[in-house]
Amino acid sequence: MTQTACYDKTEAGKETAGIAETVNAQTEKQSIQEMLEAMGQRAKEAGSWCAGLSTKEKNDLLLKAADRLEADAGRILAANDMDVKRAQENGMAAGLVDRLRLTPERIAGIASGIREVAALPDPIGRVESMEKRPNGLMIGRKRVPLGVVGVIYEARPNVTADVFALTFKTGNAVILKGGRDAAASNAAIVESLQSVLPKPAVVQLIEDNSREVTNAFMKLREYVDVLIPRGGKGLIQATVNNATIPVIETGTGNCHAYIDETADKDMAIAIVENAKTQRIGVCNALESLVVHRSRLPMLKELETVLDKHNVQIRADEASRPYFDHALAATEEDFGTEYLDYILSVKTVDSVEEAIRHINRYSTGHSETIVTKDYDNAQKFLDQVDSAAVYVNASTRFTDGNEFGFGAEIGISTQKLHARGPMGLEALTSSKFIIYGNGQVR
Amino acid sequence: MTQTACYDKTEAGKETAGIAETVNAQTEKQSIQEMLEAMGQRAKEAGSWCAGLSTKEKNDLLLKAADRLEADAGRILAANDMDVKRAQENGMAAGLVDRLRLTPERIAGIASGIREVAALPDPIGRVESMEKRPNGLMIGRKRVPLGVVGVIYEARPNVTADVFALTFKTGNAVILKGGRDAAASNAAIVESLQSVLPKPAVVQLIEDNSREVTNAFMKLREYVDVLIPRGGKGLIQATVNNATIPVIETGTGNCHAYIDETADKDMAIAIVENAKTQRIGVCNALESLVVHRSRLPMLKELETVLDKHNVQIRADEASRPYFDHALAATEEDFGTEYLDYILSVKTVDSVEEAIRHINRYSTGHSETIVTKDYDNAQKFLDQVDSAAVYVNASTRFTDGNEFGFGAEIGISTQKLHARGPMGLEALTSSKFIIYGNGQVR
Repeated sequence: MTQTACYDKTEAGKETAGIAETVNAQTEKQSIQEMLEAMGQRAKEAGSWCAGLSTKEKNDLLLKAADRLEADAGRILAANDMDVKRAQENGMAAGLVDRLRLTPERIAGIASGIREVAALPDPIGRVESMEKRPNGLMIGRKRVPLGVVGVIYEARPNVTADVFALTFKTGNAVILKGGRDAAASNAAIVESLQSVLPKPAVVQLIEDNSREVTNAFMKLREYVDVLIPRGGKGLIQATVNNATIPVIETGTGNCHAYIDETADKDMAIAIVENAKTQRIGVCNALESLVVHRSRLPMLKELETVLDKHNVQIRADEASRPYFDHALAATEEDFGTEYLDYILSVKTVDSVEEAIRHINRYSTGHSETIVTKDYDNAQKFLDQVDSAAVYVNASTRFTDGNEFGFGAEIGISTQKLHARGPMGLEALTSSKFIIYGNGQVR
Repeated sequence: MTQTACYDKTEAGKETAGIAETVNAQTEKQSIQEMLEAMGQRAKEAGSWCAGLSTKEKNDLLLKAADRLEADAGRILAANDMDVKRAQENGMAAGLVDRLRLTPERIAGIASGIREVAALPDPIGRVESMEKRPNGLMIGRKRVPLGVVGVIYEARPNVTADVFALTFKTGNAVILKGGRDAAASNAAIVESLQSVLPKPAVVQLIEDNSREVTNAFMKLREYVDVLIPRGGKGLIQATVNNATIPVIETGTGNCHAYIDETADKDMAIAIVENAKTQRIGVCNALESLVVHRSRLPMLKELETVLDKHNVQIRADEASRPYFDHALAATEEDFGTEYLDYILSVKTVDSVEEAIRHINRYSTGHSETIVTKDYDNAQKFLDQVDSAAVYVNASTRFTDGNEFGFGAEIGISTQKLHARGPMGLEALTSSKFIIYGNGQVR
């Protein structure tokens, strides 16, 4: 997978997430429901088919799909061109238009992402921990597909193919609800994918981008086993609030670095510089620095390094005098995921106070401590309540590829089912299989 | 745990699930919200405390709690007596009153259930699969508590103590919302538990049983990490529809047995008899029999066995002539969890047709095939999409104790997070812990 799901959200807030004309007529509502239920029914059937495929059959079809996308590049680029033109006419910001635009190279990248997924080990069918019970029953737990996965995302057409590869590899059918701005591109990509599949309904795209359809889709619990929103905070919040389908919350990261009393100064500065500036718009970027009071003097040197990247510093009262040109941090700053060249700074008197501050303000994504103290390192790992907790490393490593999963469908910031970067395994469930020879209770 | 979470639901539908006077005033709403948020805040703090306890500290407190419940038996029985009297005055059915009633023996049973949980291995803190990445980062996945668990249940006071034991053992705080009918009993039990805990808020009971409070509780997402409804279909449906907190759906079981062409006749009859009649009101009881057409002649003998238990048979057209006194099954019968001495019967021409029928009508709980055919056994295990799939054994084994988990918080019929009987591990999450030495990207 060339793209990480923890994508650049610099401009995500500015996207218009599929809000169209209000359609209120009762008949309209019924037809939306019928349309979605028909899709759900087809997805369920296609999911059963897909669940029965061997790993080799799935991989062959993935490779075919990758080839097909490259062969269809002309058609896909033409469709994408329509999206881009309309977006520009509507005054979309340049950064967003860039994310929307496909090129021959980007299509090649998408295809090679699919081939990489084909090369990954298949988790489906693995039986974990089969044991013999005293009554002779052999009970094992087998990895199985989730069934039908729903994904709601914004205006990046590459997500369409990425998500298909991951869900198909794990034997699932997928129903995609992309952003309105990428409608033609998404439809073109799905057409290519479907054309190589014996059961095209294994990947379906909801083409009606009205809010009514999105809301009804979120409640299609009878047909869809899990819903994954990929995008900005607004999309995720709307999904959590409206869905009756179980949701995996992804993405928001108000990440912290804590410079402990014994931190190596150069290491601390290098980690903060990297985590804050290497890529500002991603969910594992650093947003807030917590500093032990005894280390405030090193902030001047840190400021010099951050100045090179034009990072604006918003410091609390205790730390502000140590900077040359820091603004005053407000309470709100500590709770903000900037996704920008801004860093808040908080002073603490102990590792315990740092942990309390972080657990209060973080979104539970990624936090790191820089320290030479064994006990403080262990305490931080134990007590910080986040998906990924680091000692002496940049938060930027929270990523399916960096963690060795080979691919990632998103980064979960909730505690149920999957937490942290989600690889193929997060797209599976389990079932108990029991071999008996006539046992009754 | 002496009680199974897959409890007898024979009369569950008849419970009045905490529906009180409608309170509409805006001020009332605000105060409900404030009350719940204060509980949530206390639970979060208590959860952090509990997460930091060692296994020994948790076990010692569990044993203390068990002793305390026994010492407080007089006070608890007096409170329970009030609940029972009020229930009888309100005309509650005898079966429900029996479930509500506590006795000295039942309190001893509850205490010994807590002691059994104390004796179980503690999943918290275990690090799974720590690996060294090419850049030298050591990345491991550690079992951690979920945080705050919410449980909504009906009128069985023993659940109060059972749930506390399981959630406390796994380092979680719990907020309980019991049934109105057991209000005094639940409060008395919680009082005993809290009295031995340094942080009493680790177990809290919502004492206001109005529907407004229940609905607001289901949306307390900022404080509660997972919501587990334990009870009848109505309660579970209401929770799924109203909650914004992630829900683990438990319990409903429209379970099937399929008698294949090659089934051993005596084994088939013994399994059907056991699964249907050993305990009718539980979720793993058999509700529907699927029979290969070639084996219809054995139904007469099966009927003789089921007659001893007064099982009413509702048979499809093809099988009905083989019974002496079967009623005609309707389409609705195949989708019904009777929880009663009733069995529907469906005739099929192949294992494939049996699988299709089961996947269409089952609730995804437990299904079994009786067969001597290797291929059909494997096909059934592979393709039946349920939490527990058996070959040649009764469906009644789907239970945390029978599966060797030692205890169970419920049986999940959804695919996310946990599927099938949920032991202690289902009450945990994970976090990634990463040891570095200065790595940046």
